[in-house]
Amino acid sequence: MPQLPPVSDALRHAFSPVRFAESATKATELLTSHLKQAQERQAFSSYPAPSPEEERTFWSDSDVWKDGRDGIFANVIARSNHLHDPRYMGHQVATIIPETASTGMVTDMLNNGQAIYEMGPSNAVQEDLLMSEIARMLGLPEESGGILCHGGTLGNLVALMAAQRHVAHQLGLDSWQDGIHVFPQPLVVLVSERAHYCIARAMRTMGWGAEGTVLVRTNHKHQMCVDDLQAQLKRVFDQGKRVLAVVGSSCTTSAGAFDPLEDIASICKRHGIWFHVDGAHGASVAFSSTHRHLVNGIEHADTVVLDFHKTCGLPALCTGVFYGRYTQSFLPFSQHAKYLWDNAEDEDWWDTGKRTFECTKRMLSTRLAAIKAEFGWGIWAELVDRMWALGNVLGAMIETRDGWELAMKPEANIVCFRPLCPDPEISIDLWNDVIKCLRKMHLKRGSSYVVMTEFDGKVWLRCTLMNPLTDTTDFETMLQEFEALLPMAIKSFS
Amino acid sequence: MPQLPPVSDALRHAFSPVRFAESATKATELLTSHLKQAQERQAFSSYPAPSPEEERTFWSDSDVWKDGRDGIFANVIARSNHLHDPRYMGHQVATIIPETASTGMVTDMLNNGQAIYEMGPSNAVQEDLLMSEIARMLGLPEESGGILCHGGTLGNLVALMAAQRHVAHQLGLDSWQDGIHVFPQPLVVLVSERAHYCIARAMRTMGWGAEGTVLVRTNHKHQMCVDDLQAQLKRVFDQGKRVLAVVGSSCTTSAGAFDPLEDIASICKRHGIWFHVDGAHGASVAFSSTHRHLVNGIEHADTVVLDFHKTCGLPALCTGVFYGRYTQSFLPFSQHAKYLWDNAEDEDWWDTGKRTFECTKRMLSTRLAAIKAEFGWGIWAELVDRMWALGNVLGAMIETRDGWELAMKPEANIVCFRPLCPDPEISIDLWNDVIKCLRKMHLKRGSSYVVMTEFDGKVWLRCTLMNPLTDTTDFETMLQEFEALLPMAIKSFS
Repeated sequence: MPQLPPVSDALRHAFSPVRFAESATKATELLTSHLKQAQERQAFSSYPAPSPEEERTFWSDSDVWKDGRDGIFANVIARSNHLHDPRYMGHQVATIIPETASTGMVTDMLNNGQAIYEMGPSNAVQEDLLMSEIARMLGLPEESGGILCHGGTLGNLVALMAAQRHVAHQLGLDSWQDGIHVFPQPLVVLVSERAHYCIARAMRTMGWGAEGTVLVRTNHKHQMCVDDLQAQLKRVFDQGKRVLAVVGSSCTTSAGAFDPLEDIASICKRHGIWFHVDGAHGASVAFSSTHRHLVNGIEHADTVVLDFHKTCGLPALCTGVFYGRYTQSFLPFSQHAKYLWDNAEDEDWWDTGKRTFECTKRMLSTRLAAIKAEFGWGIWAELVDRMWALGNVLGAMIETRDGWELAMKPEANIVCFRPLCPDPEISIDLWNDVIKCLRKMHLKRGSSYVVMTEFDGKVWLRCTLMNPLTDTTDFETMLQEFEALLPMAIKSFS
Repeated sequence: MPQLPPVSDALRHAFSPVRFAESATKATELLTSHLKQAQERQAFSSYPAPSPEEERTFWSDSDVWKDGRDGIFANVIARSNHLHDPRYMGHQVATIIPETASTGMVTDMLNNGQAIYEMGPSNAVQEDLLMSEIARMLGLPEESGGILCHGGTLGNLVALMAAQRHVAHQLGLDSWQDGIHVFPQPLVVLVSERAHYCIARAMRTMGWGAEGTVLVRTNHKHQMCVDDLQAQLKRVFDQGKRVLAVVGSSCTTSAGAFDPLEDIASICKRHGIWFHVDGAHGASVAFSSTHRHLVNGIEHADTVVLDFHKTCGLPALCTGVFYGRYTQSFLPFSQHAKYLWDNAEDEDWWDTGKRTFECTKRMLSTRLAAIKAEFGWGIWAELVDRMWALGNVLGAMIETRDGWELAMKPEANIVCFRPLCPDPEISIDLWNDVIKCLRKMHLKRGSSYVVMTEFDGKVWLRCTLMNPLTDTTDFETMLQEFEALLPMAIKSFS
């Protein structure tokens, strides 16, 4: 019989509870001090802006690795984008409610992977209960529910897979079993031309290629044109194609526009089309009585995707996929289409792995549970109201400020703007280049973090206001910095 | 001009660094004590086994939600599957190296989403550097590299998407652009009949249906039969189909068998077929000089998937997708097939979002960095050696014990076994039912956590030895418990 050697010193050391306590205490200390410094704007800028090459050189130096875990913690904190600095106004990733990181430590330790109930009894049950609760907060009907998954891109894919399976069943087919070749007609998704690229990516992943996505024109407020939706639908039908789903954006990524869900819903209803809402960024307005109207009509959705790691203050990735009819959550992956029998009892709600792409998952629902228990869901309305107020104020500041233009009056916490071109001799393209250069200069020399986008042939500076501690003084400083850098940017092109 | 109201008390409270420190200190305290209790086997069982209904009743009680975050922490810890209890011998999810949970707290706070370089400079660079380093530890060539993603199911999908694109390019086509209808022949993947279901799931997701996956027979050691692989290839060619990839399992999920990668590699080479290794569970043996031989041939793989949250002690989800040729990591998602120009300079290695399914990601590489800095990669060899020794010893114990049979001599930390049927009058099906019942009884009354699987028409008890502190005495107790319960299980069927 082989003898089991004793646990090695290295392993005993690594698994020691005392050692864990030391590392967690160190992490707590470093993060608490980081939070204070960031919130007090102590650094020169919210974003230390090393070039990729500089960063690579730093981490390629073997000395960096000599201070162990604590050294990595300190260096990674110092060399990251500081979302808790109120001057962070960049991308759509949450400035997290700090204690959700403590929850993350708890769940990382327990690591209950949850594919089957036994591998995560508490989080599997919480997921089912809380997702139903939140679905109803979104306005979905009594029989709604949902699942949690890793990210909006995956969430949108899963929702569209449900829609595809549904279309197959309408035709008496089963695409999960027989592949997409089984469809007698090509399937397409209709979505706003301003929507996130992950909708097109989902259609390509599912095998439909670029033609699987039909872009619908937007109006001057960047919202999907209902007239064009109808025209595109007609064109699609005339071409002998079939619609997999219409996707409403709540809101678009670029400018933060909310599509008219009510109108889209009624068109979908008329044609018997699956109605999906990509609410990754903004479906959370449903939690705020002030802004809920932006998603009126969401209650008719077959599926809704919401990233809690965007406007709900949670760390990435934590995405909800909500189904208007709970039993349809078994559509994307079930080998046997039990849901057709209309016998919900056959579905094991407790084994979430049957309804998610992932086999093992992180304990995502525990974070929702901690939010509910500590703050109540009301904290999400507070967050949305603050972020949206920041968007509104920055929009108004730019609208009334000399020398600036606004892409559109903000409907969300996203603001796109740019300096007006001072000289009619300068071409559109050249001015775009100036703005690109301006943004690059600001990245290096400015104190805030602002990004960029491009639409209508124009390059725009773009702020997403994710940090509730951002204030009007931050906006003022940011605009002044751009104004100070602008002459240099112009000069570099003359 | 709209005035910005002051930050609400609720938000100021939620974002307070002091409050974060309190929550993190509380979490540290609870987890340290949990670790001690779990490692000392203080509870009656490693798994509190509430039924889904009991668990649902518990969380449906509004009183549970009154103790705030600390109450949730305490209840979730108490009501989870305790992987740090040495009697945990269940599914393939890591008993994490405790301090990786502290790292998780750091990265959850920073939340640098990393789609583009600026949203995570340190982790984007670490990812690129460390994935290349680990790729070479796996034995992949100098030009290898990879990306991190959320889970093995997603990692295998991404690898197969790369393979599909590669096949398209060989034919002068572009499936990402034009969809899978562009292929003149159906594409199939060949994989062991014992492989994880996510390979078939990937093919179905990509639109190929059930026929997209061809199962290759396994030998008595549950390894892919090379002869049958050749026969199946011939059959596939005769049917006018084309091969997307051959997938070797390292190891299979059910019994932990390692496919003969060397043989598979040479067949793939002969036919010019993409060779993918699903090493989610066991590719980590490459880090151990004792067990590396199990993946001989992996160095010829085009892609390899490895879950660091299985045998490398990290929390879920943290998966590496490795490419033998780094530039091919741009295959799955690039709209323009730049890699064809053979001009690697055109690829922005620093914007990892171009190569991952996810747009926003968790800061996965920081965890790898902390492991490297604190322990050196050697800790993975320690882990593998211990887990594999445990598998070996449990296998030997069962082999030599009266009244038990082993499905196969363990090649990994996975052991499948069952009590021998004492009476030839009992049918195979009935004995299967007895074993199912036995396992159910043990779940409720036993002190360890053991799972179940089914193959060759037989139901097996199944241990995966993920916890380095598991000892032979735990095996002895577990077997005695099953022996004590067996007569009752038999009786319930007579």
